[in-house]
Amino acid sequence: LSLSAESDRLCVVLVAPRNPLNIGAAARAMSNFGFSHLRVVNPYELAFREARSAVGAEPLLTQAEEFKTIAEAVADCTLVVGTTAVGLRQLQHPVRRLEQAARFLRKRLAGNRIALLFGSEKHGLSNEDLSHCHWLLRIPTREEHRSMNLGQAVAVCLYELARDPQALLEPEKHLPATAGDLERLTQLLLDALRSSGYVKGAPSSSHKRRSAAPTEEKIRRLVRRLRLSMADADLTLGILRQIFWKLASTKAPPAEE
Amino acid sequence: LSLSAESDRLCVVLVAPRNPLNIGAAARAMSNFGFSHLRVVNPYELAFREARSAVGAEPLLTQAEEFKTIAEAVADCTLVVGTTAVGLRQLQHPVRRLEQAARFLRKRLAGNRIALLFGSEKHGLSNEDLSHCHWLLRIPTREEHRSMNLGQAVAVCLYELARDPQALLEPEKHLPATAGDLERLTQLLLDALRSSGYVKGAPSSSHKRRSAAPTEEKIRRLVRRLRLSMADADLTLGILRQIFWKLASTKAPPAEE
Repeated sequence: LSLSAESDRLCVVLVAPRNPLNIGAAARAMSNFGFSHLRVVNPYELAFREARSAVGAEPLLTQAEEFKTIAEAVADCTLVVGTTAVGLRQLQHPVRRLEQAARFLRKRLAGNRIALLFGSEKHGLSNEDLSHCHWLLRIPTREEHRSMNLGQAVAVCLYELARDPQALLEPEKHLPATAGDLERLTQLLLDALRSSGYVKGAPSSSHKRRSAAPTEEKIRRLVRRLRLSMADADLTLGILRQIFWKLASTKAPPAEE
Repeated sequence: LSLSAESDRLCVVLVAPRNPLNIGAAARAMSNFGFSHLRVVNPYELAFREARSAVGAEPLLTQAEEFKTIAEAVADCTLVVGTTAVGLRQLQHPVRRLEQAARFLRKRLAGNRIALLFGSEKHGLSNEDLSHCHWLLRIPTREEHRSMNLGQAVAVCLYELARDPQALLEPEKHLPATAGDLERLTQLLLDALRSSGYVKGAPSSSHKRRSAAPTEEKIRRLVRRLRLSMADADLTLGILRQIFWKLASTKAPPAEE
């Protein structure tokens, strides 16, 4: 991830979480995307203890800080952003869609400690919780089913923060075969097709019989359309050589003509 | 969501899922982001049954189709994409980062049925599973902790597909206060500060005492920096009127000068 220093300035704040699996899932997503500061406000004690002691629990859970109030949990942050499944009450705050919010947050993380608040599974953030926020963020879910699972909401938000817009330009990891490889492959395939009786006529390399040309071109185009990698061209050449060797060592059936 | 017709062409395929909570979470994320075709290959029967019958289970779970093999599950799709936490074996396939993959998939969904495969919680997709895929997609997680929870991986992938790049331009839902409101607020605040003895001198509206100007300007700039919404300007005006009324009805302390 390119974030590192920036991601170290984000605090994920879970407010009154109830389900140890969700606390664990939030911590796992944080680890996946490179965020390490988890703060928990007024959690159901049993849930928090269970999440910490679960098999395979994220190490960052043991360093999670616990607070009695949101005010204390965000005291050192210069920006406090609440997450919400937009409803009527949100009209009291400016609301940004996650796509836009993340772009904004990435810039602010360059020099500021930011708190990102997630409400409890049942009720989300209350109006009082939200009054601690500078603005709200909503994940663009369907109107008919807005409310997300807590662990999934955390994962989606952190993914969007860690997501790299430049990655659109990242080249595919695909070393394409050279035109030389493709032509060798084409010729070998034509040889095999001739040996098997699929194509009639003399070897194309002699270019003596005009009638073979359309088939040869068709095969050549087919081979190009496969967009073979260098490795796959090698593999295919090997296969065809083996088939051709077998065909050549067998008596070819008499040509029809 | 703008997808609708496109999202109807995507099949989420869970291969050998083991945990009913993860199956339920995958279904929930599908509902959140507007996808409805869930296919399940060779699931642990008990897990699948439990997920379907869970309290609050997504309706789309009851329409989920069950298959014995991947080949059958993807037979009607023209593009099959596997998800993976990149390891060595992926070198056998072209791999796209999710950001890039989603842009590609969105275009292809315009006219093609596409299968997006997720492996089991424990082992992900096997090499044999992957051999059914045209290419692979990886969520850009941290090198040191690549493997995501299944439900979270589904949520992140579907979010990226449903995400709207144009949303970056969406205006903030913030009706700003007019300059007139802000000036009324500034004057009322100055009146209150004068009544309280914070500012000395005559009402600024008379513009007679030069010495009051710097303070007046400072307050005017402060009020503008607050970037108040229309509603908040109204609220603040009300508060200040009340305070001013109280101050005016009390005997002001004698000025020092």
